[in-house]
Amino acid sequence: MESKLDKIYNLCLKRGIIFPTAEIYGSLSGFFDYGEIGLRIKQKLIKIWKRFFKEENFVEIEGNIILPRKVVEASGHLERFSDPITRCKKCKKIYRADNLIEDVLGIFVEGKSIEELNEIIKKNNIRCLECNGELEDVKEFNLMLKTFIGSLDAIDAYLRPETAQNIFVDFKRIAKAYRKKLPFGIIQIGYSFRNEISPRQFLIRMRSFTQAEIELFFNPSDEKCPIEKYLDIKIPILTREAQRKKEDKVEFFSIKELIEKNIVKSKWQAYFLAKEFIFFTEILNFPKEKLRFRHVLEEETPFYSAGNFDLEYYFDEIGWKEIVGNAYRTDYDLSTHMKHSKENLSFEGIIPHVVEPSFGIDRIILAIFFEKLREDRDWLWFDFPKEIAPYLIAVFPLVRNKEEIIKKAREVYEFLKKYFEDDVIFDVSDSIGKLYARADEIGIPYCITIDYQTLQDNTVTIRNRNTKEQIRVKIEEIPKILA
Amino acid sequence: MESKLDKIYNLCLKRGIIFPTAEIYGSLSGFFDYGEIGLRIKQKLIKIWKRFFKEENFVEIEGNIILPRKVVEASGHLERFSDPITRCKKCKKIYRADNLIEDVLGIFVEGKSIEELNEIIKKNNIRCLECNGELEDVKEFNLMLKTFIGSLDAIDAYLRPETAQNIFVDFKRIAKAYRKKLPFGIIQIGYSFRNEISPRQFLIRMRSFTQAEIELFFNPSDEKCPIEKYLDIKIPILTREAQRKKEDKVEFFSIKELIEKNIVKSKWQAYFLAKEFIFFTEILNFPKEKLRFRHVLEEETPFYSAGNFDLEYYFDEIGWKEIVGNAYRTDYDLSTHMKHSKENLSFEGIIPHVVEPSFGIDRIILAIFFEKLREDRDWLWFDFPKEIAPYLIAVFPLVRNKEEIIKKAREVYEFLKKYFEDDVIFDVSDSIGKLYARADEIGIPYCITIDYQTLQDNTVTIRNRNTKEQIRVKIEEIPKILA
Repeated sequence: MESKLDKIYNLCLKRGIIFPTAEIYGSLSGFFDYGEIGLRIKQKLIKIWKRFFKEENFVEIEGNIILPRKVVEASGHLERFSDPITRCKKCKKIYRADNLIEDVLGIFVEGKSIEELNEIIKKNNIRCLECNGELEDVKEFNLMLKTFIGSLDAIDAYLRPETAQNIFVDFKRIAKAYRKKLPFGIIQIGYSFRNEISPRQFLIRMRSFTQAEIELFFNPSDEKCPIEKYLDIKIPILTREAQRKKEDKVEFFSIKELIEKNIVKSKWQAYFLAKEFIFFTEILNFPKEKLRFRHVLEEETPFYSAGNFDLEYYFDEIGWKEIVGNAYRTDYDLSTHMKHSKENLSFEGIIPHVVEPSFGIDRIILAIFFEKLREDRDWLWFDFPKEIAPYLIAVFPLVRNKEEIIKKAREVYEFLKKYFEDDVIFDVSDSIGKLYARADEIGIPYCITIDYQTLQDNTVTIRNRNTKEQIRVKIEEIPKILA
Repeated sequence: MESKLDKIYNLCLKRGIIFPTAEIYGSLSGFFDYGEIGLRIKQKLIKIWKRFFKEENFVEIEGNIILPRKVVEASGHLERFSDPITRCKKCKKIYRADNLIEDVLGIFVEGKSIEELNEIIKKNNIRCLECNGELEDVKEFNLMLKTFIGSLDAIDAYLRPETAQNIFVDFKRIAKAYRKKLPFGIIQIGYSFRNEISPRQFLIRMRSFTQAEIELFFNPSDEKCPIEKYLDIKIPILTREAQRKKEDKVEFFSIKELIEKNIVKSKWQAYFLAKEFIFFTEILNFPKEKLRFRHVLEEETPFYSAGNFDLEYYFDEIGWKEIVGNAYRTDYDLSTHMKHSKENLSFEGIIPHVVEPSFGIDRIILAIFFEKLREDRDWLWFDFPKEIAPYLIAVFPLVRNKEEIIKKAREVYEFLKKYFEDDVIFDVSDSIGKLYARADEIGIPYCITIDYQTLQDNTVTIRNRNTKEQIRVKIEEIPKILA
């Protein structure tokens, strides 16, 4: 039986939506390319994301993908951004030591040191799951991709593991040039890179992925956060208590309660939790039951963070996966960069605190695919909302062998382009039935067909993807009807 | 005296338009970050570029930045994408050997082998320009940035040196999934990386830069190129003959002549030369005298190419620099990938030929800055066309201490956002004179001011950046006037 993930993956390949990088060479695990359809979906998602999350006092940057060693040294990534790994002495298979222990013993080892993990493996005689071979000692393995800049005197540099670091090192320049006052946000959307030990599950664990990050800078003793409008919003929390008891049940808290009970330690963090919930439930129409904010356990929380909440989505047949990370990074990043660079990064008399919502764009796209996949008698198609669909409208001639009809169809297409720009596509490559089916497949909401009657009375049919109903309208009325 | 480049650079820093990556750590030569203003200009340039160059039968992809070794092995980059370098034995300064010889002897050595360069240096006793030290033997230095993927069993991979390679390795998947017929184009816009030996001149020689590339696939024996509409367009060519005679004079050729005289060997290449000339002269309004197509000399032309034309722009005080490269790549790339991958990349019975226009987006942005910089009594500002300006409209209150006026200004701003979305900005951070000056500086075409009279009769002033003239209009008429 094909899993839901397989179905989506196969449709993505077939229609060139998203597919492995360098496929003809057997590809490179964890790397994917976006084709036109996937790219349009991605660009539209980013557009509505920006429209919803980028506020008047936010600025966007596009920082470089490559960071000099000093930046990742200061941020702590060089020392700490690593996974514990072990390898089978016999078959050379590589494992993440913590995952292996959790799988074999069912115990929770997050936050344990390399030595502790080693001891657990030895004591419990954990061996290779494939060949029962003995395992090597556990090592720290840094997840950053390293490169070298310069020629004979090359120095090491790193592909950014998160877009956030550009924002911190550019903070001073941006705050001054854009005359910002606290609170304000700096956002960045772009690629980050992690040398994952075992990339898998299509867009879920990738080595090269797109993040959309907001760093919100504020004064912790006077947050000036417009939280009032969200105080009554209720959001589903998987509490630390529930996790300790291995319970899967979420509890709904109002934003007000989260702040008053000190579960969330910054109003700005609470503000973004509310906004994220609204974005996914009201803008993307995800069902509430498929979303939860997991309050990350103390031992999993980075040492500098005053609290992390992972917004998780339930991928059918796979389980809960983080799609947005929320970290209260406090003044850690600016302070450490201030110390290492010797530049004064204080602002308005304090070192600002930072709250960070970090969106995994590819995972969100996969969540949309999971949420919008439909199956009618073995025929798979996507029920994308208008704002996400790769095209709003497809224009077809009813028949392929009648020049007048094709010419008229092209006229209608040119007319609609004036209103909908490149959100309309023209296709004459197949019979009408197949064209409809192919349009449904990639989630185009409306198909417009030019037929014999069009030549007589300038009317066309508009077919609705979901109801399959067709209505006949005058050409000049289409823009008004579909707008 | 500040050079024009310095003036632009300093303005870019001051306004946070574009600035060095990791500035607070002393930066990393050849790497730059875009701030909001620079990014908006870049995004708008890409938008008009796509509107002009992306045709109905073109598809766009977003391929991965990291390519497995096999791809660059097949493409020839691993073996050949290199510069000859030498280093002073005494002071360790590194030179590009060919540039050094050209500078010292004034002779042309493009295409010479490492051994030949070595011999010329020895024979002519060329020494370090800084300390007169002896030079090391010339070596090949590969310009690709290398990284490693995987953990203990890491394999080498490369940051793409051009976006084109994604397109070739994805060709089969895209052509099939998007049901393409020759001729058709695949485009990609994104970062490429080159480990330049001496990055310099701000956006001119960078190590990380944005390309917009079109690969046009066609049947060489039946190009099916709609060239007719461009046959009479005349474009300035710096011929090979002129270059051999060290002459700087261009000659205007019609597209028809270029094809008939076999100067350009593919109609599709001629087609793009015409389009590029129209784009720069009519869309971006560059003067003709500042543009030329340099017919790249035989010895500089890559061995697989049937002819390269560099579109060059004259940067004041710097000289002519390539901003668009045009290569007729023939069937080289598909053939070599076919050979190495063992996948059949033939299509419609032939291996398609490829013509490639490759745009250096950052250099084009710098050319726009050079072209649009204005100086009024030491005050620098940008005369950006509407389509490129970071914002179309800025809205200001006349005074900062009158709440009614500020409230009204905000209302006007909200009203205009409905029409112009994020192309309108609100600013209250300074006196009106300074706000105007700051808006001019970053090239905002129109400033709208809300004053005491606005409160009485709902009229505002619209100030034109270039004429400094102000007209008074009703608020509701603004969208019509500025559209």
